[in-house]
Amino acid sequence: MKSDENLLSQLVQAFKILPGIGEKSAQRMAFYLLEKNREGGSNLAKLISASVEKIRNCSSCRNLTEDLICDICGDDRRDKKIMCVVESPTDVLAIEKSGSFKGKYFVLMGRLSPIDGVTPQDLGIPKLVSNIKSSEVQELIIATSPTIEGDATSFYIKDQLSENNILISRIAYGVPMGGELEYVDNTTLGRAIQGRREIN
Amino acid sequence: MKSDENLLSQLVQAFKILPGIGEKSAQRMAFYLLEKNREGGSNLAKLISASVEKIRNCSSCRNLTEDLICDICGDDRRDKKIMCVVESPTDVLAIEKSGSFKGKYFVLMGRLSPIDGVTPQDLGIPKLVSNIKSSEVQELIIATSPTIEGDATSFYIKDQLSENNILISRIAYGVPMGGELEYVDNTTLGRAIQGRREIN
Repeated sequence: MKSDENLLSQLVQAFKILPGIGEKSAQRMAFYLLEKNREGGSNLAKLISASVEKIRNCSSCRNLTEDLICDICGDDRRDKKIMCVVESPTDVLAIEKSGSFKGKYFVLMGRLSPIDGVTPQDLGIPKLVSNIKSSEVQELIIATSPTIEGDATSFYIKDQLSENNILISRIAYGVPMGGELEYVDNTTLGRAIQGRREIN
Repeated sequence: MKSDENLLSQLVQAFKILPGIGEKSAQRMAFYLLEKNREGGSNLAKLISASVEKIRNCSSCRNLTEDLICDICGDDRRDKKIMCVVESPTDVLAIEKSGSFKGKYFVLMGRLSPIDGVTPQDLGIPKLVSNIKSSEVQELIIATSPTIEGDATSFYIKDQLSENNILISRIAYGVPMGGELEYVDNTTLGRAIQGRREIN
């Protein structure tokens, strides 16, 4: 008698670990699977298990992959002379979707945050530095987030590579396309003015 | 090489079956589990599998349970003379939390909707009628949702039980506690006026 409530409420609690999911959403998810889509639930469970077991970090760029080397690192058609440093695999997806970058990546899996105990080692920055030293990379584009931690991470990486003769750039932060100045927040506007470029 | 992208994107697609989850949220969930909480992911997968396999409908009230009979139906301390009909197990949880009902339940697992092909049989209404006939129930409280389908379901159930000598009531729908009239929608306000009660 007792265990049934437990299994159901354990399931609800388990859904609550997902980002952005509170008690009500977790309940809706659990009941949805049990009432409407048990097959989808089984499939989801199988895929979570398989992913957690098989997906690891690329031994070169740290992106998520099932193999030793990820698809992008293993693709010889990509430009080896330019590398983009991002905070997370979702950033890689976003940049890939934009179609504006054909080089290699390095995925930090986070950003420097002394308060949370996130060190350069945690972000694989020593590995990034040695990767670059033993590579043909000529430009490193840093695409960390426009936050204090993202800025600190960017400066730290630039500092670590100061002795290497490569161009280090950072993506432009400013007013988004289609954004009306009136509705853009002050920090973004400040960044946009700071990052102004001469009109040719 | 190919399969790694597939497993990850399959996982993202699998998360999208959950209610209210689109592409971006599904991505966030998949990456969160893989980057931050693999243990939580394994646990979630195990609980989904176990739940989908073990949780079934109570043979008496149709609520979700691991056993033949759910906790509430099996609890002799609850009032057998009053029964509440709800649309879903979450409604049972909500009413139980309110602490305002100590009787039995019957869970329709939906509401009448000819357009979606939801028939009285799908909602177990024949079973509800026979349950009531063979029980000590004296009052049936219908707590279906205040929607056209919820209303239709309520009327249909009342009609099916017209020959039984039991009181059939429906919960009050009106202005919620703490709600300011100004911000209450027209339909709710209409229901509140329609459902007005004499002040004693």
